[in-house]
Amino acid sequence: MNAKRQLHLTVLGSGSWGSVLADVLAKNGHAVTIYGRNPQEIAEINEHHTNTHYIANLHMDESIAATTDLRQAVTGAAAIFFVIPTQAIRSVAEKVGAILNEEGNRPFLISAAKGLEEGSLDRISQVLSQSIPAAVRGDIVILSGPSHAEDVAKRDITTLTAASANDDAAAWVQWIVMNDFMRIYTSPDVVGVELGGAIKNVIAIGAGAIHGLGYGDNTKAALMTRGLAEMARLGVAFGADPLTFSGLSGLGDLIVTCTSTNSRNWRCGNRLGQGEPLQHILDTMGMVVEGVPTAKAAHDLSSQAQVDMPICEAIYEVLYRQRPLQDSIDALMGRIAKPEIDF
Amino acid sequence: MNAKRQLHLTVLGSGSWGSVLADVLAKNGHAVTIYGRNPQEIAEINEHHTNTHYIANLHMDESIAATTDLRQAVTGAAAIFFVIPTQAIRSVAEKVGAILNEEGNRPFLISAAKGLEEGSLDRISQVLSQSIPAAVRGDIVILSGPSHAEDVAKRDITTLTAASANDDAAAWVQWIVMNDFMRIYTSPDVVGVELGGAIKNVIAIGAGAIHGLGYGDNTKAALMTRGLAEMARLGVAFGADPLTFSGLSGLGDLIVTCTSTNSRNWRCGNRLGQGEPLQHILDTMGMVVEGVPTAKAAHDLSSQAQVDMPICEAIYEVLYRQRPLQDSIDALMGRIAKPEIDF
Repeated sequence: MNAKRQLHLTVLGSGSWGSVLADVLAKNGHAVTIYGRNPQEIAEINEHHTNTHYIANLHMDESIAATTDLRQAVTGAAAIFFVIPTQAIRSVAEKVGAILNEEGNRPFLISAAKGLEEGSLDRISQVLSQSIPAAVRGDIVILSGPSHAEDVAKRDITTLTAASANDDAAAWVQWIVMNDFMRIYTSPDVVGVELGGAIKNVIAIGAGAIHGLGYGDNTKAALMTRGLAEMARLGVAFGADPLTFSGLSGLGDLIVTCTSTNSRNWRCGNRLGQGEPLQHILDTMGMVVEGVPTAKAAHDLSSQAQVDMPICEAIYEVLYRQRPLQDSIDALMGRIAKPEIDF
Repeated sequence: MNAKRQLHLTVLGSGSWGSVLADVLAKNGHAVTIYGRNPQEIAEINEHHTNTHYIANLHMDESIAATTDLRQAVTGAAAIFFVIPTQAIRSVAEKVGAILNEEGNRPFLISAAKGLEEGSLDRISQVLSQSIPAAVRGDIVILSGPSHAEDVAKRDITTLTAASANDDAAAWVQWIVMNDFMRIYTSPDVVGVELGGAIKNVIAIGAGAIHGLGYGDNTKAALMTRGLAEMARLGVAFGADPLTFSGLSGLGDLIVTCTSTNSRNWRCGNRLGQGEPLQHILDTMGMVVEGVPTAKAAHDLSSQAQVDMPICEAIYEVLYRQRPLQDSIDALMGRIAKPEIDF
């Protein structure tokens, strides 16, 4: 226990990343509450300090308190980590906002999810700032980077970026999360960090799909390289620094998501490539595949901004327009035969 | 056969990439000669159209003529592909220069090897231009990108960059190599393409080493991300365009070399990580591990240019200074905890 930094921290979301993040924060000496909706899973965390549906081989810190009561989770927290599926964040955040309005603690809000909201096309920081009035909260910080939960659970050296419009808030998150195996960098580029984290999940579906179709490492490398270029192109259109996409939250996260079999987005694409219907994959995955709704949002956002994103578009057409995967990938690989640098 | 582009092309080097490249060129309709030093391997190519020591499962185009006679290989060629180990290129190129001086065909010279020459610290295009006078040759073109020979042999869609100071020469190489599964881009950035191709082999030894030591995907992604940054930093010091490193010959090749078990540089690092002595690895690999001499040249070059390359330096110390790998990697991961963007 590190008494110097014992804060009350709350993790909303008891999936794999939420569970591991809660464990890391507790090991860092903080008093951690984790919130989830499933009473059986919450009871398992409290009684057995495990969450076997989401993450095997993790004995969670026994100091962690798990609850299904959102008010209990939120009240008194110095920071709230949002680690729930992107499409659910607005509804939960609105409830959190109402509670904070009554309770009066003004926590930092930290997004550790990665996606874009369908319909609004908002990034998560935008959803949070719209749902929770500035008067009842601290600054918003994005925590993103190459961090498969399974590897963090094994104490793999993991690097993350904490991005915020307020440098002090980013540094504060750096301070509460950092330890021997979690290395945290700070960045002012909220837009670049969020878009990188969101879009890489769509590219990962593509990387999985070409693997499932039987393509090899050369094709995967080409797809990832062009995928990074289109992520950066979208980011630049929305004011991001293109160099952010060459950093941990862009390239780093793209690498881990496209090359690790731990990635559920990659696995979804791989199963598509092997001919399995999308709905069956989603029904049997047991976890949210963020790249699927994000592909729709990326399609809408790139159309709106008139940014050319051929890989995201190819995936979108497969997921939402019933275009046969092989046909979409063939057209994509033809399109990839264009000049390299085209910002 | 595609009669329209039937040229006499020569591939110097009968390793895995030389063999596959010769096959691709022959399938494109060219008359291809492949040169190698080992009489048994050359006889195997001529008689059985295979090169089993270097590449399994490739039935080479039966039109390919293999020879151990350098004069015979070089005479009359419209282009000569250098696909031999970097440290051997100068001595072979000097012989080629003497032959061309007598024979009078003025072939394009195409480098399809990746490394830096020890001692001189020259890139391959520099070695070629010094060894073969401009009066007896055409332009020099670099062919580089994510292209594991094993995957090209399976007709995996493969993307390459042809870089030359002369756009027309790059476009000519694009035209002779391109087909349904080989997509060739052109670039004027010879320095950036060559340094990316060379340095990624050193980073790949590092990626293999951390895998062998037991680190996981998060650490690998961090190392690759920081590795790309230091490659670009070196390139910028020598006048390269930093964006070249985010393209196929930089990021693309880095991905394939660090994440494919086909990479001999990655395999060398992995075996180092598992505790095997370097000399034993090199003695039993059966192929040149380009990253090993390049690590020495990169050390000298970055010292000379005063460019900070902590990953290359860590690998250099393991390979040439007998520093224990775990110690070197520990120090490296500590150093990686620095701000992200630092051109």
